[in-house]
Amino acid sequence: MALCRSFARLLCKQADAGLQLTKQAHSVALVGAPLSRGQKRRGVDHGPATLRAAGLVERLAGLGCQVYDFGDLNFTQVPNDELYNNLVLYPRSVGLASQVLADTVSRAVAAGHSCVTIGGDHSLALGSVSGHARQCPHVGVIWVDAHADINTPLTTQSGSLHGQPLSFLLRELQDKVPQLPGFSWLKPCLSASDIVYIGLRDVDPAEYYILKNYDIQYFSMRDIDRLGIQKVMERTFEQLMGRRQRPIHLSFDIDAFDPSLAPATGTPVLGGLTYREGMYIAEEIHNTGMLSAVDMVEVNPLLGASQEEVNATASLAVDVIATCFGQTREGAHTAFDELPTPSSPDESDSEEQVRI
Amino acid sequence: MALCRSFARLLCKQADAGLQLTKQAHSVALVGAPLSRGQKRRGVDHGPATLRAAGLVERLAGLGCQVYDFGDLNFTQVPNDELYNNLVLYPRSVGLASQVLADTVSRAVAAGHSCVTIGGDHSLALGSVSGHARQCPHVGVIWVDAHADINTPLTTQSGSLHGQPLSFLLRELQDKVPQLPGFSWLKPCLSASDIVYIGLRDVDPAEYYILKNYDIQYFSMRDIDRLGIQKVMERTFEQLMGRRQRPIHLSFDIDAFDPSLAPATGTPVLGGLTYREGMYIAEEIHNTGMLSAVDMVEVNPLLGASQEEVNATASLAVDVIATCFGQTREGAHTAFDELPTPSSPDESDSEEQVRI
Amino acid sequence: MALCRSFARLLCKQADAGLQLTKQAHSVALVGAPLSRGQKRRGVDHGPATLRAAGLVERLAGLGCQVYDFGDLNFTQVPNDELYNNLVLYPRSVGLASQVLADTVSRAVAAGHSCVTIGGDHSLALGSVSGHARQCPHVGVIWVDAHADINTPLTTQSGSLHGQPLSFLLRELQDKVPQLPGFSWLKPCLSASDIVYIGLRDVDPAEYYILKNYDIQYFSMRDIDRLGIQKVMERTFEQLMGRRQRPIHLSFDIDAFDPSLAPATGTPVLGGLTYREGMYIAEEIHNTGMLSAVDMVEVNPLLGASQEEVNATASLAVDVIATCFGQTREGAHTAFDELPTPSSPDESDSEEQVRI
Repeated sequence: MALCRSFARLLCKQADAGLQLTKQAHSVALVGAPLSRGQKRRGVDHGPATLRAAGLVERLAGLGCQVYDFGDLNFTQVPNDELYNNLVLYPRSVGLASQVLADTVSRAVAAGHSCVTIGGDHSLALGSVSGHARQCPHVGVIWVDAHADINTPLTTQSGSLHGQPLSFLLRELQDKVPQLPGFSWLKPCLSASDIVYIGLRDVDPAEYYILKNYDIQYFSMRDIDRLGIQKVMERTFEQLMGRRQRPIHLSFDIDAFDPSLAPATGTPVLGGLTYREGMYIAEEIHNTGMLSAVDMVEVNPLLGASQEEVNATASLAVDVIATCFGQTREGAHTAFDELPTPSSPDESDSEEQVRI
Repeated sequence: MALCRSFARLLCKQADAGLQLTKQAHSVALVGAPLSRGQKRRGVDHGPATLRAAGLVERLAGLGCQVYDFGDLNFTQVPNDELYNNLVLYPRSVGLASQVLADTVSRAVAAGHSCVTIGGDHSLALGSVSGHARQCPHVGVIWVDAHADINTPLTTQSGSLHGQPLSFLLRELQDKVPQLPGFSWLKPCLSASDIVYIGLRDVDPAEYYILKNYDIQYFSMRDIDRLGIQKVMERTFEQLMGRRQRPIHLSFDIDAFDPSLAPATGTPVLGGLTYREGMYIAEEIHNTGMLSAVDMVEVNPLLGASQEEVNATASLAVDVIATCFGQTREGAHTAFDELPTPSSPDESDSEEQVRI
Repeated sequence: MALCRSFARLLCKQADAGLQLTKQAHSVALVGAPLSRGQKRRGVDHGPATLRAAGLVERLAGLGCQVYDFGDLNFTQVPNDELYNNLVLYPRSVGLASQVLADTVSRAVAAGHSCVTIGGDHSLALGSVSGHARQCPHVGVIWVDAHADINTPLTTQSGSLHGQPLSFLLRELQDKVPQLPGFSWLKPCLSASDIVYIGLRDVDPAEYYILKNYDIQYFSMRDIDRLGIQKVMERTFEQLMGRRQRPIHLSFDIDAFDPSLAPATGTPVLGGLTYREGMYIAEEIHNTGMLSAVDMVEVNPLLGASQEEVNATASLAVDVIATCFGQTREGAHTAFDELPTPSSPDESDSEEQVRI
């Protein structure tokens, strides 16, 4: 019995009918998205290579998944990519890369794969969520992150697009979001009720305003402290799937974890998820049977203080992804049908040698 | 909308009438209390400087608090300060310093400030609580600490006064507590029901006897494991404010945290509060609207194994204090009134350059 | 009032009648079992010396226990100890050592002691559980471990016997377990319902099959995340003592703890017990009053990256054992009957020197 599942199109259609998929082998498309222009620190474009080196493909294969490795996309930097509004960095480069990624993810999902996008910075969700929604318009997004990533180009203070992707994706925010050069292809594809945040602990004032005024469901670290991770996941699924099943897009920023666990990342914030909470989140999402795409972002191997820190961060990211596709802490990840029985007379020939 | 509040006298009077204060800007008095004679290890007198260097004043100001910096008090050592009872160390010096601190805290509270005392060792609570209670006789104390600090001068084994302050402050214990030289100014100002402990995990036999026999409410680390921090805070407020609102004095020993988080302190004990539990405690206390004074004690920069350890410990202390005055993990700490709307036609002039 | 208890035979008989023991001083037999042939890494035979050096005897004595130190057993390696089935390592050596240990534990329990066995690798449980059950046939086992240690010699992949002891001890599995050379003395003494696991997070497919098919109660790390440690202990006792009291055998593998806390061990697995959860488990077991034997295994001083790591691991093991015998985080571990009262007029002669 293999626990992996595949769905994509099938799932997107079945979801409308409220069906849960029967168990079958996952087929996983793996897309490397070495996007780094959504933020300012060098190195996050090495994220995909780092996750591959940490054994991601082998781990998925070991779980019985069929892995279709799309390789790493080649994001060309757009020349003369001036600031938008004297502030927002590399809009054309990020826009173009996201467009390429959106097409790739859309193709992968259309082909029946669950799509795993490994970043790269979190601005890549512009592409992965758009591409996923192109095939699955009813997708629900679980955004696991220390940050809300929902500033608009007019409220951002850093100018980095990795802090803004959700503002472009949300229908309700479109009158507040200017069209950036390089973004004309992008159509908002989510409603405020299609998102649940987990792990927030560093939210800008404008972002807090958006969360509250657009009634977006979020579970901050304080909420996790208050409710416990088990209730948080229960309520997450209530919000997203209370009325009907739908495909899930998990967008996981490694900085959701505590910096002691995931130091090799660009914007660490104290007081994050424990290893066990991270695994629990991924286990519960896997157990819905509705996971259709995963982003794993912001692993930056240049920001570890040592090779150990880089390895720990990468290994954590791989653990999250593997858990999303059936790895468990209880060992049910491989089939076992029957215990072998001793066939021959007991080997006791050397027994005489034993003296006390 | 600023979330800070100021109260002091006002609060002390309103509390009797059961009123909660309306929100207004906090005015915070900051008092440095470099008291170190309550224990034996060098360096805790550098605590105030360490917390200032970690940006305490700027952090409070950034939260919208008006900070009145009283500077660091100048505690003269009393000459010929012999042991009391051949055991208790520096009674006259600790007594005098506490007296000076009590007067300062009393003045600060009387002037309408919330008073933040940064130590220094925990014997300073003799002064800060006394001074606070002089203005607010109905004060309730939340004592967050690995230790109970309630030995009497006749039960102490170390002789250090930082392990004894509560025995002097509790009315019920006065027939068990001798008057120490330097302590004649001090009048007990708390009843056993006015205190709640959080974080205990190293309690001497005599202290345990006192907790049990005088029916003092405490939540040990075991209780936190059993109940969870959310219920612990609920019951803390039930105990202290179940019948009526009252001003709160938070006396926070940094050693309440796990030594992995707060290594630069004199008497670390394994198995302490997590970062998140510490923040949750401070958030909940802030949310009562009744916090009137805070002690932050036992940060000792000479006891970190490295500068990183000192910085981590100091930063943690500053996080607790900032959270007490409105810093949140959800981002509501600054006002934001309206989202800006794109004013001009979308800037799409460079759009043509984008090719796929 | 001493909190320690002694029972052994007495307990084993009373347990049948559903009686709980009255409190009396523990008498503790300490048995060093430097068994290392149940696995492949050098150094675990130094475990007993490491725990002694960490102050185990003094800590137990400080709790009021009478410690009968049986010293470290001398396990001779059996010559020509060839692989069983071309795979299973050192069957005769492990079998013989376990037989010696079984006799020792049996004698200790018969003499009225609680028996603490310090390892050594986890294959020693073959001996300690067998010896304990010889005196207390109704013993219940709490197995705290990252691993299930229940492979049979026919399902093991590593060939190491420390991953197999429970398969030999369980009655239900005997048609699946061949008799190994050196094991003829060993009779299965447990039923599937006599065991509860806590802390599992790395379970082999065949082990998972056994847990499920033989209906063995286990609490994986996921279960602890889901239920909390308090409920886990409640259900553990329900399972083992829901119908009647019985003596408890705690078999504690240090790798149940997170590797950040217990690095000096042979098969660490991420996402383990916190320090506080470990103490809670031991406190609750102590509080039943039914603890009759403890194994503490897999501390390997050669596997720490530094002396600090070894010390931390050893100290953690000692804390677990001490907590099993009455050490608490609330301080009730020593009696205290009355507070001393100041006898003479207050010493206030130096008071005049105090000026402000």
